[in-house]
Amino acid sequence: MPYIALKLVEGRSIEKKRELVSSVTKAVCDSLEITPDNVRIELIELKADLFSIGGELVSDRDQVKAK
Amino acid sequence: MPYIALKLVEGRSIEKKRELVSSVTKAVCDSLEITPDNVRIELIELKADLFSIGGELVSDRDQVKAK
Amino acid sequence: MPYIALKLVEGRSIEKKRELVSSVTKAVCDSLEITPDNVRIELIELKADLFSIGGELVSDRDQVKAK
Amino acid sequence: MPYIALKLVEGRSIEKKRELVSSVTKAVCDSLEITPDNVRIELIELKADLFSIGGELVSDRDQVKAK
Amino acid sequence: MPYIALKLVEGRSIEKKRELVSSVTKAVCDSLEITPDNVRIELIELKADLFSIGGELVSDRDQVKAK
Amino acid sequence: MPYIALKLVEGRSIEKKRELVSSVTKAVCDSLEITPDNVRIELIELKADLFSIGGELVSDRDQVKAK
Repeated sequence: MPYIALKLVEGRSIEKKRELVSSVTKAVCDSLEITPDNVRIELIELKADLFSIGGELVSDRDQVKAK
Repeated sequence: MPYIALKLVEGRSIEKKRELVSSVTKAVCDSLEITPDNVRIELIELKADLFSIGGELVSDRDQVKAK
Repeated sequence: MPYIALKLVEGRSIEKKRELVSSVTKAVCDSLEITPDNVRIELIELKADLFSIGGELVSDRDQVKAK
Repeated sequence: MPYIALKLVEGRSIEKKRELVSSVTKAVCDSLEITPDNVRIELIELKADLFSIGGELVSDRDQVKAK
Repeated sequence: MPYIALKLVEGRSIEKKRELVSSVTKAVCDSLEITPDNVRIELIELKADLFSIGGELVSDRDQVKAK
Repeated sequence: MPYIALKLVEGRSIEKKRELVSSVTKAVCDSLEITPDNVRIELIELKADLFSIGGELVSDRDQVKAK
């Protein structure tokens, strides 16, 4: 432990993901005073047409904004 | 909040998904007397060859039925 | 299926929860044209001292508001 | 119930997955003395570039090992 | 890995839980040909008044059956 | 978004949890260049008798170590 599931909307670069898992792991280790080898992070990328806010798919909201 | 993860077998149309997230958001808002903007729904589509019922992959069950 | 995990901040009455699971089940059935017996809903009540928004525990935010 | 979400790194064959869901279902049924028809298993395959151990993406670790 | 979240209705004895995690771990190891030390199982006990089937809380269904 | 579910074994102080959610939120914001108000973290505390490693409940492993 700890096991971290991090949900974010799809689209970040692999470099951003590297930076994300590295800095979140460090933050967890510094706070809980543990070593990194037991810290696991699962990135769950949400697709805009499978995620809604306020009853509307994010993909539909994006299209409205794009017009 | 609330945050809703809704797992369903893969295959519904985008129109069905729109209707689903809209009506579930409304049901949540009406019941809890909250506004929709904080209600998030994540649709998780399960692939038939990654989901089992009674120890058998749904993809295998479907093939048996199709024969 | 479908399996629904609904996360909400702790504190609603049992009557509210009854209304919530009943109306969400109906919304899912009406949208997906399925029968209710396969619809499962898990209510996950989040404790204010185990949930944060913007880096602050909700329990701390509530105390600030209460002052 | 029970509902089982089994997370594993991507890459197993369909035969392995069949064997996995069948034997885990049996293990659950034997232990809890229940029948299989209510046991649902969701296999969640983690992609090496979306999963980290010790702050490092598994995809990067694998590349280091491959050199 | 693998990481297993096993959801079941509350009420089993500690002995049953021991047997469950031991036999499920063995089933996973035998199927995937891995060693047990990396297999983690989280038991998530669902409370009858926080879980619904067919739009009805299990706690309400149990009371109807008890009459 | 993002929504983070952070699972850790039960037992940390409220101060540790404050530090944890604050530093993880900062790490996410710095990496993804987003503002904190949309970052939600759910702390899921695992009980030692509901979590197993290598087929053995952590509560049992702890007792063996304590002897």
